[in-house]
Amino acid sequence: MSAAQPSVFARIIAGEIPCQRVFENEHVLAFLDIRPLAEGHTLVLPKRSAARLADLTPAEAAELGRQLVAIAQRVVAVTGAAGVNLLLNDGQVAGQEVPHVHFHIIPRQAGDGLGYRWRPQDRNAADLEALAARIRAQP
Amino acid sequence: MSAAQPSVFARIIAGEIPCQRVFENEHVLAFLDIRPLAEGHTLVLPKRSAARLADLTPAEAAELGRQLVAIAQRVVAVTGAAGVNLLLNDGQVAGQEVPHVHFHIIPRQAGDGLGYRWRPQDRNAADLEALAARIRAQP
Repeated sequence: MSAAQPSVFARIIAGEIPCQRVFENEHVLAFLDIRPLAEGHTLVLPKRSAARLADLTPAEAAELGRQLVAIAQRVVAVTGAAGVNLLLNDGQVAGQEVPHVHFHIIPRQAGDGLGYRWRPQDRNAADLEALAARIRAQP
Repeated sequence: MSAAQPSVFARIIAGEIPCQRVFENEHVLAFLDIRPLAEGHTLVLPKRSAARLADLTPAEAAELGRQLVAIAQRVVAVTGAAGVNLLLNDGQVAGQEVPHVHFHIIPRQAGDGLGYRWRPQDRNAADLEALAARIRAQP
């Protein structure tokens, strides 16, 4: 079995491809997206290779959450954004383009035309409770 | 100065309004969105009242990240989703409707019409590096 081709993010982490670095520690790297949706659009990722959410350890998820929130506040302060979206796309169907877990920090301004497509559905409480019970029972 | 009106999420946490609970521990509560974008659309929030990202402590951000990733995997397993988006809207301009920090877990299927509006811009590396340097220097 041959090893998978290193992703572009693995090559950035290894220093083989340059990036515009925003933050780095032992576990997490953050850099500016080269095709930003908005000024300050930043990617935050674990340095260890993890293609999908299911590949993260609980400790890695915690460190990612901790740094994500801290970095987002610095991005907002510098860009003067009025708000921010934090977004993770897990799986190709969800918009994941690079097979290495990463959060997007997307600064927001009024009238920028960004945001998530919001098409809510109506559900009744009994159907929701039946589903919630199944998720609670999931190991 | 009068206290702010408790948000609907504060009242859910206090048990004054019912919810379809998916997970709960000392620090984090997760329940199904009553107007879901998709089957299994779940909200994950700190129990302590925190309106904005800037109100979270680093420890709260870490615990939120840890549980968010674990809960998302259970939601995906039960719904059979092909992928998932994790989304946080911070600020009204970013789509935040309830003034209490919360992540959305949005299960995805091919052709569901959901996802983030993706309108990338081209930027040159020198401009990005100048911005990255400002964010790195931000306390």
